[in-house]
Amino acid sequence: MRILGVDPGTVTMGYGVIEAEEDKIALVDCGALTSPARTPIGERLSYLYDGLVEIISRCQPDAVAIEQPFVAKNVRSALAIGKAQAVAILAAAKSKIPSYEYTPTQVKQRVADYGASSKEQIQEMVRLQLGLSQVPQPADAADALAVALCHLQEIHLESLLAEQQ
Amino acid sequence: MRILGVDPGTVTMGYGVIEAEEDKIALVDCGALTSPARTPIGERLSYLYDGLVEIISRCQPDAVAIEQPFVAKNVRSALAIGKAQAVAILAAAKSKIPSYEYTPTQVKQRVADYGASSKEQIQEMVRLQLGLSQVPQPADAADALAVALCHLQEIHLESLLAEQQ
Repeated sequence: MRILGVDPGTVTMGYGVIEAEEDKIALVDCGALTSPARTPIGERLSYLYDGLVEIISRCQPDAVAIEQPFVAKNVRSALAIGKAQAVAILAAAKSKIPSYEYTPTQVKQRVADYGASSKEQIQEMVRLQLGLSQVPQPADAADALAVALCHLQEIHLESLLAEQQ
Repeated sequence: MRILGVDPGTVTMGYGVIEAEEDKIALVDCGALTSPARTPIGERLSYLYDGLVEIISRCQPDAVAIEQPFVAKNVRSALAIGKAQAVAILAAAKSKIPSYEYTPTQVKQRVADYGASSKEQIQEMVRLQLGLSQVPQPADAADALAVALCHLQEIHLESLLAEQQ
């Protein structure tokens, strides 16, 4: 099972691909797409869209997991995050891959078993779960990997529940 | 000059195309795309995106004008509007057409010369400016036409300013 996690932003879009096989979880690729500065929003969204479509085509994930904040500093930032999410959702849909949205609290609960964990604690959990010597950089990539790990844990919990029924 | 106006929503996306030639403004096409109910967000955004790309391809506008609210009921609705805006911005960018965003206040000021006009007053101004016997239906289509007329007025004002300099 391969999962692409996305930390959506219209300036920087973090991404991280993980591969889960039996008990082992491995890092496939991660990084951040940075849209060209001082260009119209159309060009920026188009650049991020093309970047995600390229990553999906290259890494062939089975699912795309996208962070969906319920709180934003203000309406303007919520509109911007919504735009970035739509780019990721469309890139997945046009590549015929299902997408899932998770709130930061869900990510924290699934990755660190505790909804109020700090950003640093989550990044350290990402490092440990992927067996890395250092926290992946930049921070947006680590955040994206956390969303991917959240989706993996969600699938794991769902299959455990299905077994019990 | 042909302008496609968009009233963005993830459920219903209003659209309206106007053609301006010298002193005459004519309605080319208008309506609303309604995304399939009870389907994943990816399918809905993909449906709206394909619909807008088809309208752009068929009507060949020179510009796309999109409503950009600064206030939303809550963060959840702002995220949804942001998603719908991104779909319209991407559809324009991928069709190599520039897109512009206008707040509801800008639309009211440009279309009715008064920022606090009611929705009904704006719709009546759309009817009058396009020389129609009735307000275009559905309401989302009339709202989209108002955004297109706002962009036309903006261009008109900019050219007047340029002449004075």
